[in-house]
Amino acid sequence: MQLVRLGEPGSERPYVRADNGVTYGLSGLTADVDGGFLAAGGVARVAAALAAGELPEEDVTGLRVGSPIAQPGKVVCIGMNYRRHAEETGATPPTEPVVFMKAPDVVVGPGDDVLIPRGSVSTDWEVELGVVIGRTARYLDNVDEALDYVAGYVVSNDVSERALQFSTAQWDKGKSCENFNPLGPALVPAAAVPDPQDLGLRLWVNGEKKQDSSTKDMIFSVAEIIHHLSQVMVLRPGDLINTGTPEGVALGRPDPKPYLRDGDVIELEIDGLGRQRQTARQA
Amino acid sequence: MQLVRLGEPGSERPYVRADNGVTYGLSGLTADVDGGFLAAGGVARVAAALAAGELPEEDVTGLRVGSPIAQPGKVVCIGMNYRRHAEETGATPPTEPVVFMKAPDVVVGPGDDVLIPRGSVSTDWEVELGVVIGRTARYLDNVDEALDYVAGYVVSNDVSERALQFSTAQWDKGKSCENFNPLGPALVPAAAVPDPQDLGLRLWVNGEKKQDSSTKDMIFSVAEIIHHLSQVMVLRPGDLINTGTPEGVALGRPDPKPYLRDGDVIELEIDGLGRQRQTARQA
Repeated sequence: MQLVRLGEPGSERPYVRADNGVTYGLSGLTADVDGGFLAAGGVARVAAALAAGELPEEDVTGLRVGSPIAQPGKVVCIGMNYRRHAEETGATPPTEPVVFMKAPDVVVGPGDDVLIPRGSVSTDWEVELGVVIGRTARYLDNVDEALDYVAGYVVSNDVSERALQFSTAQWDKGKSCENFNPLGPALVPAAAVPDPQDLGLRLWVNGEKKQDSSTKDMIFSVAEIIHHLSQVMVLRPGDLINTGTPEGVALGRPDPKPYLRDGDVIELEIDGLGRQRQTARQA
Repeated sequence: MQLVRLGEPGSERPYVRADNGVTYGLSGLTADVDGGFLAAGGVARVAAALAAGELPEEDVTGLRVGSPIAQPGKVVCIGMNYRRHAEETGATPPTEPVVFMKAPDVVVGPGDDVLIPRGSVSTDWEVELGVVIGRTARYLDNVDEALDYVAGYVVSNDVSERALQFSTAQWDKGKSCENFNPLGPALVPAAAVPDPQDLGLRLWVNGEKKQDSSTKDMIFSVAEIIHHLSQVMVLRPGDLINTGTPEGVALGRPDPKPYLRDGDVIELEIDGLGRQRQTARQA
């Protein structure tokens, strides 16, 4: 099963897509897929209600697909976390996770437009494995328990404006432009992802494959990231972690780098987590 | 008048402190001081209700003072924005605002403990002018209109862990530890602050004055910051901007630097915006 939120921006309602392809409404169970719902064992409650045949089947034809989670309390990003991406950008592989933040309000649906900021000439794509926290994680004792704190996984596009990212030493300025984090289509429960370190992830621009890698190439695993972050911040239910992008971004290509232009179509997917499709539009 | 939120963490209720010192309840007017309330002209509605004598006087003796705004959608911070602070840290004054982020969930009340992260030996203070956004600001045309987007001002302590801040090139890791943003005591409406560039701000540790400056020393003014940010992100009602700290932080002192230790008392104030007092405690 997969959790989805469908409807117009700000008015999305929660649904579950069963493995048989049928969509059932969750509004009788929860108002939204947010931190409170996840913390209260929401994923297990959906599974139980689904198994018991208690959920109403719904016709969702034509509904917009929103972010599969309500606005996160925070969006934590890990930089330079794939070996070959570090190579392509000329960076030394980090010896501890590099952490930056995205503003939570830039999370949008997986089919919403990627907006090219006014004046931008270097808006870039980044397919990433997104991790949604399900339980409060604070000073975890060891890495082995870290995955117990994951509610589920999601496809994330960590859109980046490179001139802004590098105009000062702090990257955040190029990471939180409007609509810069398409998320979804679905929140896939952790139990349905046997090994988050064995997922293929790919991205295309106008049909041309740009990124094609595997989470096997991560420098720090999902479990190591969660354990590390829990030592320096409190991770709360509903928080999103973008775990880094593999090689193949525009930044890593020879000049003239093929940054996004108005009308470009970006598609991205991760094994078992679904597929996104956005159009780049001038803001 | 000043807006305050009083009560236990997560259960704060909104009040207004009138200029005569009397506290009135706002629960009949709004459930909380959040983005929706500010966007709907909440400050003006409070002023009108107060003038009309429509608000109930309340005895708030003994109530905890919370952050004067609900959890922001984002907390945007400006680094190296005071000339003499740039000097003390050996940095070249920036030619454009340096932007980093704090996780919104580290905002706490002005009297809540500053928690020293486990293993930390370099937790530092930073008194800052906090700016709370009242209207959505997106690609503002000019600097002159920027202050129209401010709901009010607030005292902010941008607590920082320097080893984490500088362990990689990205500062965010040392900025979002638990309880790292005491805020308040009050949201002072923009109309009550004639010139945000003429405010004295001071900080003491165990009674010894550490920071004593004025917002006159800012490199980028509040209006310039808002205008600049609106070109690279959408500022939304309820968002918080920490506008940088003046000189006098522990980082700027000779070795051994006087970083915070368990039991230290931090006090900070800004002209007209009130005073905070925290105790540093081991997390």
